[in-house]
Amino acid sequence: MAITETPVRLPIPPLPRGFRAAGTHAGLKRNPTREDISLIVSDRDATAAGVYTTNLVFAAPVAFDRSRTPGEGFRVIAINSGNANACTGRRGLDDARAMAAAAAKAVGVDEAGALVLSTGIIGEFLPLDKIRGGIDTVAAKLGSDADSAVTAARGMMTTDTRPKLSGSSFTVDGHHYTLFGMAKGAAMIGPRMATMLGIILTDAPIGAADAQRLLREVADQTFNCVSVDGHTSTNDTVLLLANGAAGGKPLAGKGLDAFAKSLLDACEALAREIADDGEGATHVLRIEVSGCRSRDEARQLARSVADSPLVKTAICGADPNWGRIVSAAGYAGVGFDPEKLVLRLNGTLLFRDGAPVEFDGGAVSASIQASRETLIELDFGSGPGAIRFYSSDLTAEYVRLNADYHT
Amino acid sequence: MAITETPVRLPIPPLPRGFRAAGTHAGLKRNPTREDISLIVSDRDATAAGVYTTNLVFAAPVAFDRSRTPGEGFRVIAINSGNANACTGRRGLDDARAMAAAAAKAVGVDEAGALVLSTGIIGEFLPLDKIRGGIDTVAAKLGSDADSAVTAARGMMTTDTRPKLSGSSFTVDGHHYTLFGMAKGAAMIGPRMATMLGIILTDAPIGAADAQRLLREVADQTFNCVSVDGHTSTNDTVLLLANGAAGGKPLAGKGLDAFAKSLLDACEALAREIADDGEGATHVLRIEVSGCRSRDEARQLARSVADSPLVKTAICGADPNWGRIVSAAGYAGVGFDPEKLVLRLNGTLLFRDGAPVEFDGGAVSASIQASRETLIELDFGSGPGAIRFYSSDLTAEYVRLNADYHT
Repeated sequence: MAITETPVRLPIPPLPRGFRAAGTHAGLKRNPTREDISLIVSDRDATAAGVYTTNLVFAAPVAFDRSRTPGEGFRVIAINSGNANACTGRRGLDDARAMAAAAAKAVGVDEAGALVLSTGIIGEFLPLDKIRGGIDTVAAKLGSDADSAVTAARGMMTTDTRPKLSGSSFTVDGHHYTLFGMAKGAAMIGPRMATMLGIILTDAPIGAADAQRLLREVADQTFNCVSVDGHTSTNDTVLLLANGAAGGKPLAGKGLDAFAKSLLDACEALAREIADDGEGATHVLRIEVSGCRSRDEARQLARSVADSPLVKTAICGADPNWGRIVSAAGYAGVGFDPEKLVLRLNGTLLFRDGAPVEFDGGAVSASIQASRETLIELDFGSGPGAIRFYSSDLTAEYVRLNADYHT
Repeated sequence: MAITETPVRLPIPPLPRGFRAAGTHAGLKRNPTREDISLIVSDRDATAAGVYTTNLVFAAPVAFDRSRTPGEGFRVIAINSGNANACTGRRGLDDARAMAAAAAKAVGVDEAGALVLSTGIIGEFLPLDKIRGGIDTVAAKLGSDADSAVTAARGMMTTDTRPKLSGSSFTVDGHHYTLFGMAKGAAMIGPRMATMLGIILTDAPIGAADAQRLLREVADQTFNCVSVDGHTSTNDTVLLLANGAAGGKPLAGKGLDAFAKSLLDACEALAREIADDGEGATHVLRIEVSGCRSRDEARQLARSVADSPLVKTAICGADPNWGRIVSAAGYAGVGFDPEKLVLRLNGTLLFRDGAPVEFDGGAVSASIQASRETLIELDFGSGPGAIRFYSSDLTAEYVRLNADYHT
């Protein structure tokens, strides 16, 4: 399948202190210009936290990383694309372990300090020789410059048209801390606890329990609020590495709050990027749900709208078809009173008091056509629960990409 | 939007004794060759049962019929297409009542003996003048021949390419009873308690409580096991009318069992037809799930596979991409052991023991291309729960139809 690449979005955020990265082509992808193996190395022991797919059919690297996180003493993450190492049974788990061992050996650290991520085709065994060769190659190329970060992010891409990067920073007690995030994913995106693959690096000092708790909370508001096709992957993983290289004591109290805010910014930017780069997408749908009894109910309502093929094709066709939006909320499995529901599309009121309202359909349609982002606001008028959810429109190009992407 | 019609499938089942039907064009659809108003009349009092959408945003005719069924003494069903009378508030309910009254008056029966069905665009008020005129016209055309049945079924079509009809029969104590079914639906098909619109007529004598119980049971195994796009409509309704015109005492015991079997046959044929006529469909997916702890769990697993855009595009592309099928089951929200799962596609074993098996991908792909129906069998190896589920593939034509179908 031919994927047309688009340039990486600028500016490229810097790697936090004490981290190096690189990516290279090791022969897992057919196209020799595409990186398919990456390493992320921390020059000092890092705290690691992870959130993973809730799919019962989960990949070997998910099983491997889940058994190790949260924890301390991590030094390296090895990543491959082109092969998901999913549905590969016991041999798949042995292969994940071998990949971690090869990465640890290549950068001269203990095997217990390694994590692995895989993405690509399901149901084929990892080509271990290529992976070992690629790891040795990439270990010699590690750097902390922008090019190194970008090639590492490219090494986790599958049908993505560009690497997805984000950065943020905060200051506590005079210490300036940096976060760097990278993610991949353009289809099989319907995360229920994480996203396809995401990595957040920080030079802040954070304990494992705090890191895990905050990563979970932030993932629920960001990566778990994005959908391209509602299909929850076997490999969804977000890892956070915090190496404390910027100094200071382990964060607590307001310091942790500042970190959490910074983490939310970095993750939300990546989540939006995933929807924006959804396979075949011509629009990002930003769905703002409010007035619900809880955040969970808001998310469930937003997801129902976000996953409806009829809503997604309507936006593709620049059609303010509010009946599809309202009825998608109606089957979300969450109780609400349709009489209290207020719907706006790109700021224009389309539905309230259980009945249609007059609006200029041509103007709303033109506003959809004029912008990459379409804003759908649903206020259920019954409580403080709210969420922001990102999705993409459904186009003939999505069908073409997935009908033609042969096993 | 231009829909290319296909011929009605033969043979056309006969209307049961004591029923007459007709359809006509009343100006709700733009194309004057398309029927948009129909009447179904029973010449004697009939028992009526109904199952309806579980969408919280339900249409006025759903509210109206739900308040009247199950019950006795029904004589007429008035149907319109081109306008769903959904999201129309109190005025919509008044309009549904006016439509029922017009139908009762036109055929000379009591207002309490009328039911109504509407399908089409959401959020516009019914054009009552056109509907009253159409009802008077069609009341003068009622007949019990095949042409009358077909025009009545055409009057409920929206983007359907052909009327969907089914028939079955059974004998109890020397009385030969007939069932006639008609349905519509090609998108916004993800019924959770019924389907878009379906009507089952029988000349068997059945009490209201039995009729309601059996219609519910059968709908759960047929109309609730079909999906085109997973979007549960605001108007889903299945009505059963039983007028007893073929004689005999009210059915009980084995007589009811025979009726239930006949009802299942008639409903399953219509359910399959809806998937087969799914918008843009090039394949019907028949998903046979077995080995589950309950039928409900089997249905939930089947629905997850049936609704996955990645599974649906894979079949469109004739790709035996079993990883997409197995992972769609994995996020269904039903517990199972992936090691016990056995997957076959068109009879070929693709996955077992949690790991891939060798198979001839080219041969399986060729078998998908060679047949309109693709058979996906999933055995979860954990119990007696089983279900058959129908879906359609996802094609670029579906996107085109729904991106271009402007409000």
